Amino acid sequence: MTAGGGEVPAEVRLARAWLSRAVEPGSVAMWQFVSEAGPVVAAAALRAGRAPRAVQALVGARAQEDLSLGDLARVQRAGGRLVAPEDAEWPAAALHCLTLRALEQQAEDGDRPRDRTTSLVPPLALWVRGDHPLDELVDRSVALVGSRASTAYGEHVAAELAHGLGERGWTTVSGGAFGIDAAAHRGSLAAGAPTVVVLACGVDRAYPSGHSALFARVLEDGLLVSEWPPGCAPLRHRFLVRNRLIAALTRGTVVVEAAARSGAQATAHRARDLGRSVMAVPGPVTSAMSVGCHELLRDSERGARLVTSAAQVVEAVGRIGEDLAAPVHGPASVADSLSDVARRVLDACPVRVGVPPERLASVAGCEVLDVLRVLPALELHGLVEWTGTGWRVAPRPRDR
Amino acid sequence: MTAGGGEVPAEVRLARAWLSRAVEPGSVAMWQFVSEAGPVVAAAALRAGRAPRAVQALVGARAQEDLSLGDLARVQRAGGRLVAPEDAEWPAAALHCLTLRALEQQAEDGDRPRDRTTSLVPPLALWVRGDHPLDELVDRSVALVGSRASTAYGEHVAAELAHGLGERGWTTVSGGAFGIDAAAHRGSLAAGAPTVVVLACGVDRAYPSGHSALFARVLEDGLLVSEWPPGCAPLRHRFLVRNRLIAALTRGTVVVEAAARSGAQATAHRARDLGRSVMAVPGPVTSAMSVGCHELLRDSERGARLVTSAAQVVEAVGRIGEDLAAPVHGPASVADSLSDVARRVLDACPVRVGVPPERLASVAGCEVLDVLRVLPALELHGLVEWTGTGWRVAPRPRDR
Repeated sequence: MTAGGGEVPAEVRLARAWLSRAVEPGSVAMWQFVSEAGPVVAAAALRAGRAPRAVQALVGARAQEDLSLGDLARVQRAGGRLVAPEDAEWPAAALHCLTLRALEQQAEDGDRPRDRTTSLVPPLALWVRGDHPLDELVDRSVALVGSRASTAYGEHVAAELAHGLGERGWTTVSGGAFGIDAAAHRGSLAAGAPTVVVLACGVDRAYPSGHSALFARVLEDGLLVSEWPPGCAPLRHRFLVRNRLIAALTRGTVVVEAAARSGAQATAHRARDLGRSVMAVPGPVTSAMSVGCHELLRDSERGARLVTSAAQVVEAVGRIGEDLAAPVHGPASVADSLSDVARRVLDACPVRVGVPPERLASVAGCEVLDVLRVLPALELHGLVEWTGTGWRVAPRPRDR
Repeated sequence: MTAGGGEVPAEVRLARAWLSRAVEPGSVAMWQFVSEAGPVVAAAALRAGRAPRAVQALVGARAQEDLSLGDLARVQRAGGRLVAPEDAEWPAAALHCLTLRALEQQAEDGDRPRDRTTSLVPPLALWVRGDHPLDELVDRSVALVGSRASTAYGEHVAAELAHGLGERGWTTVSGGAFGIDAAAHRGSLAAGAPTVVVLACGVDRAYPSGHSALFARVLEDGLLVSEWPPGCAPLRHRFLVRNRLIAALTRGTVVVEAAARSGAQATAHRARDLGRSVMAVPGPVTSAMSVGCHELLRDSERGARLVTSAAQVVEAVGRIGEDLAAPVHGPASVADSLSDVARRVLDACPVRVGVPPERLASVAGCEVLDVLRVLPALELHGLVEWTGTGWRVAPRPRDR
């Protein structure tokens, strides 16, 4: 698949490329304008300064620039493409939740759209590098997010979760940052599973630069995705806008480690707003990097589900009857299946010298007949033995 | 206060002492019989073998024994006493929940009481060592329970929680076992707060024997409590019976560390059945000793509330308006209070060379007028500065 190829008309892709650079993503009014006018007409109106005032203002000084051909050539040189809503691989099902929320906000705002760069609104286009079709990769995917200042514990858990998800056929989506994000991508790759990095800058930029090798490895098995055209810088506000995309593309978001009042918590709330599963991994209460997770778990209204394993994550996001985690069990014990009287008689048995049933009845607080009734079962289970003069606990009970 | 003293008739105390040894605690039928006949008549009937068959069977071979005078003398020699429901210090308010549950079970069972040694039923009497009145000490108390095979993390948290509870005027109640129990008692003592050890053996026995010094220390500031008369052994089934008492005496139970399918989980369910708050401390998902806690936290029906500090425990069990934990907050930031446009302009400012507003408008994706509108506020907050030729990020932003 190439940037200009496919069944999508070249003028549509060019218009989407131009809009992608001219408009900072996240505006409901702009999304509405492009949806109604179509990308070609919308782009032409904005470039001519003829768009409605509120929408025109969002483009501002960028209306005079046109790098669309250059951007498409640049992503193609990097082995990538611009995926438009008109493309077959557009993740329409996943992004449907954003469409619904955008329509809701539009109804709320009426004729006076508010300036919200972090609105829950679908992207106008996505720049993608990697071989997999985007829609297939995110169909069964989970977001693992967390702090950049992660601990060894958090990184270990993120990698284990991603690895386990990969083994179960699930794609891990994250933001490619240091810390939890990187551990999650690496864990997924280690399982031979595809992973998706959703960037807040151009897909041809390695940000952070220390992750250029990681991103190269991702490109072999997964995808780099961004709403911003090639070369764009990871400006701070873009991370918030990007995070809505991570939440929307996946079936659920797992916060692995987060400080109090952190971006990961914001992503979790974003996922909740989109109707996605929100999960959090607990950690030591002595760790500042688990405070955000614990706050999410303590929040009874907008809170998260506690997960400790990939199986539990899949149970939360998977389809009913298909992905159910096994309950955690300790070893079963013969003693657990005993009646109350039998248990008391067993407890009354001394370890060394055998004693008569009358003594057992006195210690156990029951009648001698009860003792005689339960002793055969206890002996059968190898729990007690007859010494010739009395009963005692069997020297090596099979399972007590 | 002495074993035979107070306003309670000697024959009542003697009868309670005899019943305490003759009957293994936890039987609804026996509690009902003693409640209705009164302790003196009930004891006489049981000793003569004239009690109803179902109740008589619970005493079994013990009907012929009478160590009541010796038991009372023995506890008195140890500086203790037998606290009966007729005593002023009987914790009637706390134990009321057991009375209600016993009456429910009685109604369910009808004429055919089931043999349940772990029934939720009030004790017939309590053997107590220590100076504080029992009812006063448990009025504002919390149970801290957990594994004997605890980790250093669990012991640290148990001690911290108990210390914090003690500082806030709350009594810590636990079982005196190795591990979490001991750490909880020690944390409470370190705060100069009273602590209560509820034993599954006689109050004159140090079990485990390694805790004789700890129990001696508890006696200076707190209480040793048991349903079983002096000298009684800590038989296995007694721990389950004892656990209902820990749950009932306290306003809530905190599970600090617990393996899967552990006794601490059972105590938590017991507390839930009694309408008490159930809390659990999270831990590393890599620790087997936190699996039980996490299972409790994942259980949406019979589950527990996640707590990470003494303040949060007090919030869960305290009275409304009196004990409310402060929410966890990160540092507030000036940048957080900026409008979306201001944030985008700030992000667009270069770090070194100043640029004109037109350039900022292009990078930020807004109109030049918007840039000129927000720049004064950004400058006022010390976030940007004018270099003489353009705007850049202020070298040392006060708080970004």
